[in-house]
Formats: sequence, structure tokens, C-alpha cells
Amino acid sequence: MKRSLYMKILVPIDGSEYSHKALLHACDLAKNQQSSLIILYVIEKSILNILDKKEYNLIVKNFGEKVLEKSRKICIEKGVDSKTVLKKGNIVDEIIKFARNENCNLIIIGSKGLGATARLLLGSVSQKLVVNSPCSILVVK
Amino acid sequence: MKRSLYMKILVPIDGSEYSHKALLHACDLAKNQQSSLIILYVIEKSILNILDKKEYNLIVKNFGEKVLEKSRKICIEKGVDSKTVLKKGNIVDEIIKFARNENCNLIIIGSKGLGATARLLLGSVSQKLVVNSPCSILVVK
Repeated sequence: MKRSLYMKILVPIDGSEYSHKALLHACDLAKNQQSSLIILYVIEKSILNILDKKEYNLIVKNFGEKVLEKSRKICIEKGVDSKTVLKKGNIVDEIIKFARNENCNLIIIGSKGLGATARLLLGSVSQKLVVNSPCSILVVK
Repeated sequence: MKRSLYMKILVPIDGSEYSHKALLHACDLAKNQQSSLIILYVIEKSILNILDKKEYNLIVKNFGEKVLEKSRKICIEKGVDSKTVLKKGNIVDEIIKFARNENCNLIIIGSKGLGATARLLLGSVSQKLVVNSPCSILVVK
């Protein structure tokens, strides 16, 4: 058996079509490389004061849980082992911290998506990840 | 035999340690995926008027040819089929045009390097590629 190039792959998702595409690509690669897949949803800290903070957190938490559950089912259908993780904080910081702590070999993300609010205000998450990621990063088109 | 996820991989190089690392990674992946590898060096158009244009072009062309030849030898050592291509123009534009025309499935680049002059003046090449690439892009750390 060939050695795996990517033992542990991290897939940060946000429920967008772009992260869905990235997840499907990650499943293909994980199956091909016998990798373990970790699917991460980060509850973005509210920057804008558009909703009551408690209400915002609950809505986003529920959404995140649903997106993770849907992703887990896709992995099962594809025959790929995965675990799902929910975090809260700054999207880029949490992804980088998680990838570092878990010694991930590869991060797979969509070319858009991952935090519309943060992106508009602070610049693209994928671009920030490309610069700051502790491991190689695959941006799926 | 497993189907290849990346039939045609493009590796733009610039002679930096970062693009060398990207090339080694590309060799591993190409071998693993039975991909064909295309190594591209783009002669960057002179933006600054630091040298006589003709002299600048000659120096950079010679450098590019040496870097391509060195890369080709690395591929042979690694047992990976490759072809080398030399282009002239804007680095990002040429890489994107080439990837599109050749229907590449993946671009592999280093996280730094690829045009120090252009990067300082116009922003990171890798970041521009992530945004504008017609295919998926792997940034190697």
C-alpha cells in the first residue's frame, strides 16, 4: 500500500456551496489517501450588533450543528471516516489553532465562503489561511 | 488502479526555496496520483528600471532556464514524468492563462516566493492565484 501523503485532513466548513464542494473533494482525497477527516465549524463571534448576542449565538450554533451533521452523513455515504468539531471564536484563528494542535497535514477549503461578515470587514478568510496556515492548504475551485 | 484525482498538475517555480519545496511535494503527489507534471517559469516583466531591459531579460531568461533544468533533473530522480515551459509576462496572468489553456486540474505553489518585486509592489502572487486560479490550488508549507 502506498504511504499516505496526508494522514490528517482538516475541512473547515460554513454551510456554503463552496465548502460543500471542498468537503466532497476532501472525501475523494481522504479515501484515496486513507486519511482521517476532521470537519470543523467555527461559530463566528458577532462583530456587528444586528441581533441580541444570546439569540445570535443560539441561531449560529444550531446552524453549525446542522451543517456538521449533514457533512458527517456525506462522509458516511462516501465511506470516509470523519469526526466533527464545533468551535467558537475568530474563524481564521480557530482553524489555525486547531490545525496546529491536531497536527493536521492539510487544510482543504472552498475558494469562497467561510464567514461573509468577516470577509467583507477584514478580507478573505481563505487568503488569510493561505498566509497563516501551519500546514499545506488546498483551495478547491 | 485507483483513478487519479489530478491528471495534470502545474508547478510554477521561481528558484526560491519555497518553490523547491512545492516541487518536491508535487513530485510526491504526481507519483502517487500518476499525474503528468508541468513545470512553469515565468520571466517577470521588468517593472523597475534597475537594469538595461535587454540585459535584464537575458539574465532572467538564463536564470529561468537553469531553474527549469534543475527541476527537470529532480523529477527524473524522483521518477516523475515532467515537461518544462518558459513564458514571459505578468506572473499571475501567465500562470492562470497556462492552467486554463492546458486544462490543468491542480496548481501547486510554495507559500512564499514567485516574484519578490511583483509581490512587494502588487501583493502576494500566491494570494492572487488563490483568488483567480481556474482550478484548485495547493499551497505547500
